[in-house]
Amino acid sequence: MNWASLRLSPGDDAPIYRQLSENLADWIRAGKLPDGSKLPPTRELAGLLGLNRTTVSAAYQALENEGFLKAHVGRGSFVCAPTRSTAFDWDDKLRSAAPERGAILWPPDAASINFASSRPDPAVFPLEAVRRAAEKELRERGAAILQLGAAEGYPPLREWLSAEMRRSGIAGPGDELLVTSGCQQALDLIAKTLSPPGETVFLEDPVYPGARDLFLNAGVELRGIPVGPAGLSIAELERELARRQPRLLLVTPSFQNPTGSTLTLEARRELLRVAARFGVAIVENDVYAGLRCRGPEIPALKSLDRDGRVIYLSSFSKVAFPGLRVGWCVAPRAVARRLTAAKQLADLHTDQLSQAVLYRLAAGGALAEHHRAVVRHGARRLEAAVAACRSEMPAGVAFAPPDGGMHLWIELPPGLDATELLARARDEKVLFVPGRFFAVSRPHHNALRLSFAGLAPEKIRRGVAALGRLIRAQAAAPARAAEEGIPALV
Amino acid sequence: MNWASLRLSPGDDAPIYRQLSENLADWIRAGKLPDGSKLPPTRELAGLLGLNRTTVSAAYQALENEGFLKAHVGRGSFVCAPTRSTAFDWDDKLRSAAPERGAILWPPDAASINFASSRPDPAVFPLEAVRRAAEKELRERGAAILQLGAAEGYPPLREWLSAEMRRSGIAGPGDELLVTSGCQQALDLIAKTLSPPGETVFLEDPVYPGARDLFLNAGVELRGIPVGPAGLSIAELERELARRQPRLLLVTPSFQNPTGSTLTLEARRELLRVAARFGVAIVENDVYAGLRCRGPEIPALKSLDRDGRVIYLSSFSKVAFPGLRVGWCVAPRAVARRLTAAKQLADLHTDQLSQAVLYRLAAGGALAEHHRAVVRHGARRLEAAVAACRSEMPAGVAFAPPDGGMHLWIELPPGLDATELLARARDEKVLFVPGRFFAVSRPHHNALRLSFAGLAPEKIRRGVAALGRLIRAQAAAPARAAEEGIPALV
Repeated sequence: MNWASLRLSPGDDAPIYRQLSENLADWIRAGKLPDGSKLPPTRELAGLLGLNRTTVSAAYQALENEGFLKAHVGRGSFVCAPTRSTAFDWDDKLRSAAPERGAILWPPDAASINFASSRPDPAVFPLEAVRRAAEKELRERGAAILQLGAAEGYPPLREWLSAEMRRSGIAGPGDELLVTSGCQQALDLIAKTLSPPGETVFLEDPVYPGARDLFLNAGVELRGIPVGPAGLSIAELERELARRQPRLLLVTPSFQNPTGSTLTLEARRELLRVAARFGVAIVENDVYAGLRCRGPEIPALKSLDRDGRVIYLSSFSKVAFPGLRVGWCVAPRAVARRLTAAKQLADLHTDQLSQAVLYRLAAGGALAEHHRAVVRHGARRLEAAVAACRSEMPAGVAFAPPDGGMHLWIELPPGLDATELLARARDEKVLFVPGRFFAVSRPHHNALRLSFAGLAPEKIRRGVAALGRLIRAQAAAPARAAEEGIPALV
Repeated sequence: MNWASLRLSPGDDAPIYRQLSENLADWIRAGKLPDGSKLPPTRELAGLLGLNRTTVSAAYQALENEGFLKAHVGRGSFVCAPTRSTAFDWDDKLRSAAPERGAILWPPDAASINFASSRPDPAVFPLEAVRRAAEKELRERGAAILQLGAAEGYPPLREWLSAEMRRSGIAGPGDELLVTSGCQQALDLIAKTLSPPGETVFLEDPVYPGARDLFLNAGVELRGIPVGPAGLSIAELERELARRQPRLLLVTPSFQNPTGSTLTLEARRELLRVAARFGVAIVENDVYAGLRCRGPEIPALKSLDRDGRVIYLSSFSKVAFPGLRVGWCVAPRAVARRLTAAKQLADLHTDQLSQAVLYRLAAGGALAEHHRAVVRHGARRLEAAVAACRSEMPAGVAFAPPDGGMHLWIELPPGLDATELLARARDEKVLFVPGRFFAVSRPHHNALRLSFAGLAPEKIRRGVAALGRLIRAQAAAPARAAEEGIPALV
């Protein structure tokens, strides 16, 4: 057995023991290491591969846990080749209509500058306050938290959120509030309840891929309405509405993902007028509005809505913690009740411990304090990103600085492709998401999203500087590539 | 204004202040209390209604929170009639295909004997251990818990569960494990991924309504295979399979909900042989297996499966805490990956704080200790329920005592209807779920489910005794009802 041919890359994201166990598992599956054969003692393989013995032991342990090895004390480790055949034809059963798509999530890597992850900076998390909140809630209401709860949400949190939504003018007397497992679940419930397969839904274009893929998987036809620096194009929306009637329009009026753009107050009023003219239902995704760093707040569409056509979604993910899956939805009563029935069938209810912790943080003021810290930190990062783009990006690169949120949308000079730029940038450990991942009805090949909210200002500056250099190099490349007969796009 | 006509029932489940605020809100909505009109001072209304002043203040505060009232210091409370019209026609948009059904959940009421709720007894919850687990996990991994996580699950919990599933022979080398937001979400992901609208799914009949309604809402055609005292009828399954090919069969081999029945080892092997003969995929719901009080454990279908046709589901809800929404799914790799992609679109991932708490309880041994306590308490309750049924139920009532689980399935003498019995039982504050709520292809009018797991043995005895008396009375009634020309069914 040529043990030295095991492919191990110390620079890789996966730990070495994991790379080793996966390589060996591949060999076992492929029959290269037959059933019952003996693996070399850990000390021997460690010597052969130049590894620490504990690394090899960890790999053997992982293989044993996964059923690929059986250790016999004093005799060594023996291969257990998979006896269970996977003869059953699942491919045939896997619903062909469902495209298998999902967000791109690169594993965190301290060495890289990751503009791809749209996440808050964990350094800002108020860990001590969260611990205290969990402790107090479990002490005071532990049995209720651990017991089966109401589909609508943990009552103290739901009441607190309802009061908050009424105070801000978002919820009216005809509305009800439903706590969801993040904003993503609210979209899933809306897809199930309001958009039957074959119907059309209008989305922003470009849009957050999690929203697009969710509706696609539900068998819905999508139409993308262009988003510019000032948000959704209402003129384009009107043109599309004249052609077809969608079941609903999903819109993110503040700091849209991926463009970072925001609709002005006047544009929001105009959007509602157009929606009223065509009888369109609106789903408002407001998860980024709380991340405003400068300029006056603009009222949510829902608070400007006078005829109950808007369903409002928000969550704690962006202003607090994405790991606690808690969002909410404010909708006219009849809709909220149908969404609640759908929610009960989806997961019975949202996890109560997280709802309880967030309630305690909210009611005690710690959440508001954390929110202010998030905005303060966000402002420094936004400033760093905008300043770096201004000084480092070559002429021909376009971007519209937002007043908050998590994203900058960068348009490359004509002819340049963001996927090609990413291939070059990854070599320098700079990551971002190319525009095509956000495409609905348009390709967005020459655009990219920079998520700045989770990165230290210094990293933002270095990352943007690297991208600026690479874009300059790329701008010179297509001509050369064409001369050499190599396609410029990868 | 005739304030005395406000309908308040002190014996009702809802607190008086809530009844008052809802009555007043109805009056405001109906225009009986017009916009801008002044409500009587709290002291005055309290006097008129014979209530405590703080009760009226709480009702006014609730109305204010909900936007129905505006309090002006020193001037009083004024009605804000809903100005926002709900002119928009949502009914038209609400997907007509989706039946609005959900489980029956009566509000907890200390005075009643509630056999309807299938919940663990909160008195057994190890609250101190849960607090310590939350404290420790947040201290050691707080930032990772609060940050966006992996769709497959919180890594420490997923690894612990995978090892556990391999050790018990449930997961083989070709399988992967996915943490879900309870077992209910796993069913939802399976419906989305494996059962396109218009296809057929076979369910047990009677079955847990949450499973039935989930598939119905997904547009799937259902066929119920009868369940007897020895579990799913494999002979009936064969007959149905000879007629049509379902996308999958959902089965609960141990302590099925609602019948409490269990398939023997030989029946499990026979079921797999039949499934192999007809090429059927099986989804195994194993959430109750951990609640065995006596008799030897029977291997899961998944561990007997030799060709990878079984998807295995379980959760912490029944053996630990339903309020923490954490379940898991073991499936052949290709299926698990598709379910993971669907999960990412449904809620990104399961709440991490709950996963972390359960991991800590599991790894530290507290979960196993709690599980033993649950089984110990369960055994006493099961024993009480079976003994009470034996001594209190009249001749003609049939039931098969299970060896564990949470439910007893009671069949009434021919001609008696469980819904009618419920109407009589509610008057005596005894609640249960009539058989028809679990119906798939058969009515189950004369059967009922008693969930004993959450009730003290003394309550079980009193409740069963009351039901025995009512059944005797009912057995005498149909004849009388017919004589009087009153229909026996309500």
